Amino acid sequence: MVAIINQAHHVISQYIDGFLLTHPELERLDQEPIIALREQEKTCVPLISGGGAGHEPMHLGFVGQGMLTAAVYGEVFIPPTAEQILRAIRHVHKGSGVFVIVKNFEADLLAFQTAIHQARQEGIPVKYIVSHDDISVDTKKNFQKRHRGLAGTILLHKIVGAAAQSGLSLDDLEQLALALSTEIATIGFARKSARFPQAAHPLFELEEGQISYGIGIHGEEGYRTVPFESSEQLANEIVNKLKLRFRWQEGEEFILLVNNLGTISELEQGVFLNDICQLLDLEGLRLSFIKAGRFATSLDMAGLSVTLCRVKDPVWLAYLQEKTTAPAW
Amino acid sequence: MVAIINQAHHVISQYIDGFLLTHPELERLDQEPIIALREQEKTCVPLISGGGAGHEPMHLGFVGQGMLTAAVYGEVFIPPTAEQILRAIRHVHKGSGVFVIVKNFEADLLAFQTAIHQARQEGIPVKYIVSHDDISVDTKKNFQKRHRGLAGTILLHKIVGAAAQSGLSLDDLEQLALALSTEIATIGFARKSARFPQAAHPLFELEEGQISYGIGIHGEEGYRTVPFESSEQLANEIVNKLKLRFRWQEGEEFILLVNNLGTISELEQGVFLNDICQLLDLEGLRLSFIKAGRFATSLDMAGLSVTLCRVKDPVWLAYLQEKTTAPAW
Repeated sequence: MVAIINQAHHVISQYIDGFLLTHPELERLDQEPIIALREQEKTCVPLISGGGAGHEPMHLGFVGQGMLTAAVYGEVFIPPTAEQILRAIRHVHKGSGVFVIVKNFEADLLAFQTAIHQARQEGIPVKYIVSHDDISVDTKKNFQKRHRGLAGTILLHKIVGAAAQSGLSLDDLEQLALALSTEIATIGFARKSARFPQAAHPLFELEEGQISYGIGIHGEEGYRTVPFESSEQLANEIVNKLKLRFRWQEGEEFILLVNNLGTISELEQGVFLNDICQLLDLEGLRLSFIKAGRFATSLDMAGLSVTLCRVKDPVWLAYLQEKTTAPAW
Repeated sequence: MVAIINQAHHVISQYIDGFLLTHPELERLDQEPIIALREQEKTCVPLISGGGAGHEPMHLGFVGQGMLTAAVYGEVFIPPTAEQILRAIRHVHKGSGVFVIVKNFEADLLAFQTAIHQARQEGIPVKYIVSHDDISVDTKKNFQKRHRGLAGTILLHKIVGAAAQSGLSLDDLEQLALALSTEIATIGFARKSARFPQAAHPLFELEEGQISYGIGIHGEEGYRTVPFESSEQLANEIVNKLKLRFRWQEGEEFILLVNNLGTISELEQGVFLNDICQLLDLEGLRLSFIKAGRFATSLDMAGLSVTLCRVKDPVWLAYLQEKTTAPAW
C-alpha cells in the first residue's frame, strides 16, 4: 500500500510542520521533534509527554492550555532520545518543576528515566507517572506480560493537565496521577494490523473476517483471534474483560473513552459505542463522561479500544470537564 | 472486509444513538434520522442540512450553536425522504423562517426541493443554497458533468451558521450563501475507493500503487489515474487544478480546508497539508485560515480533498472564526 508521503525519513518532521500550520498557538523548538505551547502559564507546573510517532494525534494533538505543555516525538514506534526529552524539560521548567507522563514500554521508560535523572541532577524538580492501562495480559506470551500504556494515557493528560492548570503542586500532581493510573484500564481489538508507511505487509497477519482481541499499538498481536460475528459480540468480550479487571458494583461511576485505533469508519465507531454503552448500562454502571474519537492510534490499524476509569474522587470528573485548548481533545 | 456493525439495516440508527451518547446537547426526533439542538436560539434563523449517510461526521457532527440547527439523514449514500426533511423544517421553524443547505446531487435536490415546496405551502418561509464546490469536471464522462457538493459544504455550514447566529435575516443569509458558494472549490484524490459495509468489493477498482484524481464521495471514479510518486506530486496536481479554477493573483486571501475522506492516517494528512501550504505559499496566496481533519468522508475511502475559498468579504473570515459548539468543527 502506498503511503501519501515524500521521503520516508522526513515523515515525522513534515507531519509536525503540517500540523503546526493549523495551530499557530504551538511552536516547534528549532527543527527538533519537540512541540510546545507558545504562551505557557508560568505559575502552573508544566506537563510533558511523548513517545514514538505513529499514534497521532497522540501526543502533539494534546498540547494546549489545560493539557500538555509540550510533546516530544521519536520516529515511528521509536521513543525520542533522552537528550530530546531533557531539552523539552529544560524548556518548560519555569521554577515549579515539571511533571512527565510516560507510557509503559521498555524503550520509552529507559529514555524518559535517563532524561529525568539528568534533569534532577541539574536541579530541576521532576515527578512522573507511568501509564499502564493495558489489561490484555496473556501469561503464555512473554511480550504481553507488561501492562502497556494505551489510550488511557490520554485521560492522564486531561485530568492531570487540568489539575496542573488549577494550581496543584508537583507533589500533589504525583499523588493524583498515582491514584488515577490504578483506576484506568484499556482493552481493544482489531480486524486489520498496522502497516509501516510504504511497507508491503502489515505488522501481523490477520485473515479477512478475523478479529484479534487485546492488540497493542505497535503491531503486537492480541491474546485471541476469532471470526467476526457482530459489533455486539465484540462489545460483550470487551465488557467481560473490563468487568474482571474492575469487579464493579451496580451504581458505580465510570468515565468511558472509546478510541479509534486508526481506520475504523465513524459509522462503525458509533455503532460499537452504542453497543458498549448498552452493555455497561445493563451492568448498572453510571457513565458520567463518555467520549469517542481518535486519540491514540496505531498508523492505519483498523480497530477500536475501550478505556474505563472508575471515578474514585469527584474532582477527577471536574478536571475532566474543564475546558482545554488542546486541538485533539 | 468485515464492518464493525450488527444488522446492516440498523447501522444508521445505531450510529446516531451512539453519537448522541457523547453529545447530550443534541436530540433525536422520535426514532427518525433527524438530529437537532435541544436548546435552539429562537431569535435566529435556523439552518438545516442533510443527505445520505456514509459521510460522517457530515452532517450530524456539525449540529451545534453557530452551525446547523438540525441534520437529516438517509441510508448510506441515499438522501432522506422529502417527508423527513419537511419534518425537520417544521421542527426548527420558530417564526423567522428556515435556511437549508443542499449538496448538488440529483436525488438530494429532488427530495429537498419537494420538502421546501411543501413547507412554503404551509406558510414557512424557506430559502436554500445548493453547494456545488466540486471542480473535477470531465466532459467525456456524463456523470461527472455536475459540480457536486463536497467538503466545501462544511464551509457553508460554518460561515452561514455563524451569520445566522449573529442575527442575519433569511434574505441576507441567502445573499451571503450565494456569494460564498461561487467562491468555494474542492478537488481531491484517493488511493482506495469506498466500500459499502460488508460488501466484498470496493465501489471502483484501483490497482495497488495507483491514485485516482477527482473522485466523488459516492464511489464515483476520478478523471485520471496515475501511479503514486509522492505527496508533493499530488499536491502539485491539486494546486494546478485550483489555480485554473480561481485564476488567482499574488497576495489574494484564501481559506484552506484539507479534508480526510476516511482512512488516510493523521501522519499522511499532516505531510500532505504541509506540501499544499508550501505550494500555495509559492503562489503568493495569503492563507488566513487553515484547517485539516475529517469533515466529509466517504465510508472507508483512503483519500484527501482540498477546498479553497477566496475571501471576497472580510466578514466571511470573521464568521469562520466565531466559536461553535458543533462537535466535529
